[in-house]
Amino acid sequence: MSHAPSTPVPYTYTRRIQWGDADPALMAYTARFLDFAMDAVDSWFRDVVGVDWYRLNTEHGFGSPAVHVDMDFSTPLRPGDTLQLSLYVERVGNASLSLRFEGRLDSGEPVYAGNLVHVFVDRKSLRSVPMPALVREPIERYARACRTEGS
Amino acid sequence: MSHAPSTPVPYTYTRRIQWGDADPALMAYTARFLDFAMDAVDSWFRDVVGVDWYRLNTEHGFGSPAVHVDMDFSTPLRPGDTLQLSLYVERVGNASLSLRFEGRLDSGEPVYAGNLVHVFVDRKSLRSVPMPALVREPIERYARACRTEGS
Amino acid sequence: MSHAPSTPVPYTYTRRIQWGDADPALMAYTARFLDFAMDAVDSWFRDVVGVDWYRLNTEHGFGSPAVHVDMDFSTPLRPGDTLQLSLYVERVGNASLSLRFEGRLDSGEPVYAGNLVHVFVDRKSLRSVPMPALVREPIERYARACRTEGS
Amino acid sequence: MSHAPSTPVPYTYTRRIQWGDADPALMAYTARFLDFAMDAVDSWFRDVVGVDWYRLNTEHGFGSPAVHVDMDFSTPLRPGDTLQLSLYVERVGNASLSLRFEGRLDSGEPVYAGNLVHVFVDRKSLRSVPMPALVREPIERYARACRTEGS
Repeated sequence: MSHAPSTPVPYTYTRRIQWGDADPALMAYTARFLDFAMDAVDSWFRDVVGVDWYRLNTEHGFGSPAVHVDMDFSTPLRPGDTLQLSLYVERVGNASLSLRFEGRLDSGEPVYAGNLVHVFVDRKSLRSVPMPALVREPIERYARACRTEGS
Repeated sequence: MSHAPSTPVPYTYTRRIQWGDADPALMAYTARFLDFAMDAVDSWFRDVVGVDWYRLNTEHGFGSPAVHVDMDFSTPLRPGDTLQLSLYVERVGNASLSLRFEGRLDSGEPVYAGNLVHVFVDRKSLRSVPMPALVREPIERYARACRTEGS
Repeated sequence: MSHAPSTPVPYTYTRRIQWGDADPALMAYTARFLDFAMDAVDSWFRDVVGVDWYRLNTEHGFGSPAVHVDMDFSTPLRPGDTLQLSLYVERVGNASLSLRFEGRLDSGEPVYAGNLVHVFVDRKSLRSVPMPALVREPIERYARACRTEGS
Repeated sequence: MSHAPSTPVPYTYTRRIQWGDADPALMAYTARFLDFAMDAVDSWFRDVVGVDWYRLNTEHGFGSPAVHVDMDFSTPLRPGDTLQLSLYVERVGNASLSLRFEGRLDSGEPVYAGNLVHVFVDRKSLRSVPMPALVREPIERYARACRTEGS
């Protein structure tokens, strides 16, 4: 008696590239791509998991610092381009969460892709804690929806 | 025998505030508000004037550096808030353009407001030039539409 | 029997302009100039006032949100340039502090100048409070040193 | 009949963490760590290689977009901390350059470490080109100095 997931998968964050994102090589600055990925993940927490990083920290007392990030770049972005960043759950650990992001142009051309690994911590002590229940359930549901979609 | 302006006025740029926009005071960082205003103006150039700063520079050979900015702040922004930034043409000079921006929450509550003054320059020499025809006409049309709306 | 102020006046914050500060016009991006000014003021709080914004917030429970900023630009900055930002106290109010900043190249050529007005607030309630004693005394001492230097 | 390298190795870029670098978790924001690494590499190009990214692009007609980045985080940074970022050449390819960066606190405690891989391209066509001679020689000299130091 299960029902279909209510969230379309993959979650895709959209962002138009602006003048201020670009550098003297006339394309988006390398470091901005991590801002884009972080904004995508924060939006996914808000829209899919149900609690964004801000409320997770300030209302629930948990932090989720990154312990690893990697990115591989295929194609430059220019102001006026629209970036579509899709998010996938790679692994749900006891205290950690591994996410994969894949960025494309509207045309579907790959721009960049990478991974972000976060751990959950107590906001005060910064000690790692098991993934809080309020995020674990929706994260696992989203991971299942992605697997179903991909199968 | 005039016709109604095709652009809704005022042009309003929308942006959701993210975790990465905020500082340890748990609200959006002061310097980010200028990024928001610049992104709004760049989007207005793209959507209303018909050419964004990037194409104005790289295809048409004109720059538009800021010579003045001021901002007054009323209410803090927090991650999860949506900022609505409306743009108004204050003055169309020979070589300069004065824009006013007013930022509000979805509720209508004022967040901040200010002014940006840009001059148009030759991209190579950086000498000021009369406002290029390709932007002057749509800018004046938008200014008229704002006056009509406000009257 | 007064003694010379221990702080050289004006306090000057130095910053080398980097690739990532610049935009496709091949010069530092407008919005970055507010980051530079904010970093200069934060450094002045740390080095001259004796407590930076972080400790003022997290240890002492006070915030100091900006209520006003203005900037006028004279000359573009390019990567490799060194910006010298000097700070002056314009006015010490009951709950507010008005600072003026003047940015120059190493050559002395003016780059930009402007003003930042902050109010002091209780970090929790965000209600304005009289300027905390721990910052008022060193700020007033610095203001006197600037006046003496300038006379 | 070789002589000692004139550059101390490893090159270390120093940066004080500011209020504006930090987020509501009261520590430096994840995405800023890539800005720090990029600024360190740009400074290394200027100070050690002899030409920064800006001049490489605008005077010599070469770009060096990143094709890969990874970072692993050990310890949070807070405003007031000083980050020491040391740079190492991992591999000098025909058209690519692999750099490793290691960030530490003044105390020596590791903060984060990672890798940046850049390729050299013709600025106009964006096609990859052999590493330009003007940078290859000083980069190889620095790589040798690092190996000598490490042996």
